[in-house]
Amino acid sequence: MTATQVQALISDGLPMADEIGFTVERVRPGFARTRVPHSDRNIRPGGTLSGPLQMALADAAMYAAILASLDKAEMAMTSNLSINFLQKPAAADLIGEATVLRMGRRLAVCEVRLLSPTEDGEVLVAHVTGSYALPTKA
Amino acid sequence: MTATQVQALISDGLPMADEIGFTVERVRPGFARTRVPHSDRNIRPGGTLSGPLQMALADAAMYAAILASLDKAEMAMTSNLSINFLQKPAAADLIGEATVLRMGRRLAVCEVRLLSPTEDGEVLVAHVTGSYALPTKA
Amino acid sequence: MTATQVQALISDGLPMADEIGFTVERVRPGFARTRVPHSDRNIRPGGTLSGPLQMALADAAMYAAILASLDKAEMAMTSNLSINFLQKPAAADLIGEATVLRMGRRLAVCEVRLLSPTEDGEVLVAHVTGSYALPTKA
Amino acid sequence: MTATQVQALISDGLPMADEIGFTVERVRPGFARTRVPHSDRNIRPGGTLSGPLQMALADAAMYAAILASLDKAEMAMTSNLSINFLQKPAAADLIGEATVLRMGRRLAVCEVRLLSPTEDGEVLVAHVTGSYALPTKA
Repeated sequence: MTATQVQALISDGLPMADEIGFTVERVRPGFARTRVPHSDRNIRPGGTLSGPLQMALADAAMYAAILASLDKAEMAMTSNLSINFLQKPAAADLIGEATVLRMGRRLAVCEVRLLSPTEDGEVLVAHVTGSYALPTKA
Repeated sequence: MTATQVQALISDGLPMADEIGFTVERVRPGFARTRVPHSDRNIRPGGTLSGPLQMALADAAMYAAILASLDKAEMAMTSNLSINFLQKPAAADLIGEATVLRMGRRLAVCEVRLLSPTEDGEVLVAHVTGSYALPTKA
Repeated sequence: MTATQVQALISDGLPMADEIGFTVERVRPGFARTRVPHSDRNIRPGGTLSGPLQMALADAAMYAAILASLDKAEMAMTSNLSINFLQKPAAADLIGEATVLRMGRRLAVCEVRLLSPTEDGEVLVAHVTGSYALPTKA
Repeated sequence: MTATQVQALISDGLPMADEIGFTVERVRPGFARTRVPHSDRNIRPGGTLSGPLQMALADAAMYAAILASLDKAEMAMTSNLSINFLQKPAAADLIGEATVLRMGRRLAVCEVRLLSPTEDGEVLVAHVTGSYALPTKA
């Protein structure tokens, strides 16, 4: 599946993804690079991005990486998600790079790095692990 | 602090709380009961509430419990959050009951139970633990 | 299954449980109360119990609660475990009370409270959530 | 600090580290590579290594990475630890590579990859994140 196809699937299933402007930049089996573009609407007092926005991006990035890895995975559902906030992201785009650590028959375990673009490159602002329950094969 | 005071503080600090209609129902030191009222805007295809909405409520519920426990804690910031999704919440109100498990000098550790109202009472739909970094005393 | 039966199963499967003197005090469907008795061997410098000992007890307590809830669950395996250390346990017995939050077809999600006996009753020293992958029905 | 110095500190503070033969292979600021050598004593029925052993190694690896990064960090204490078990490790050595994701003033957040050596190189068997509360500067 291409990045465009993954993004179309996610827009259909997650209305919120559209609202925050979620885009899928790049996918390959086991990996997805995703982005929430800068928007005044997402900025909190203090000029940063909220925790819930970061969690929403991480969840969608994991879903994108699974869709890019497995046919007919649209019904996959988040089973758990654990996030460590490391530093405040800048009032800028937020990038989520998701890697599938293990694709089991029933559960996919993923890691997501949330990155904030700076003059010196992209810095890690949060680290996420999570798992998705996979749909049972028909 | 009263529930109304806690809610006013959160509305000021978290614009998103207002958007989703977040309300603080009841507080006491170490505890807060909070709610996101039913809204068509929050409903996902399939008639349920999204994972990110659940995470946003859990995060705000922890913050409410901390504000109810500690003076001048407005600058407390989420350090980590870990959620287990147990079952799909109904297309209805979503309730978040947060308990402070430990109020340290530097870190508050909380537990949140997300509940969905049904005919047979409130059922547990997600379980969350998380910690907030507390502001340093001046 | 009785507490004695659950304990016998665990002693067979987890040699380490025997080494640390792990006992199952009480079970009912969805719940197990377990204990590691005081032993000089488990005490760390500073007169407390190590983090790994606490994690080992939590893991075994979850397993006990699952065995008490489901037939033929011996092959259940820990999928993830997340622990928040709240305060140092005393150099005394350590108690683990595990509750099954959700028993799904494929995954059991549990919560464990680690308790330390004091003069004023049992105090919470660590909070754990975790999930076990359940064996597929034959 | 050298790997040998870090290992000596850990042997002094964590008797269990010595019991399981924990060794520090390599350190640099923000990183430690550690190992538990193969021992019949650590093998579970089925020819694999127990979950608690994996958690103990992950915890010690994080501690080693912190000691390698910060002076006088001996009193750092695990605040939380979250592990995803990905596949059964072989009945062989177990390697833990810990990276410090964020060294704050009060909290160090780390990631650990547990690796099992195979003919085709080292494979990831578990993924861990955790945080250590750092001692307050005198």
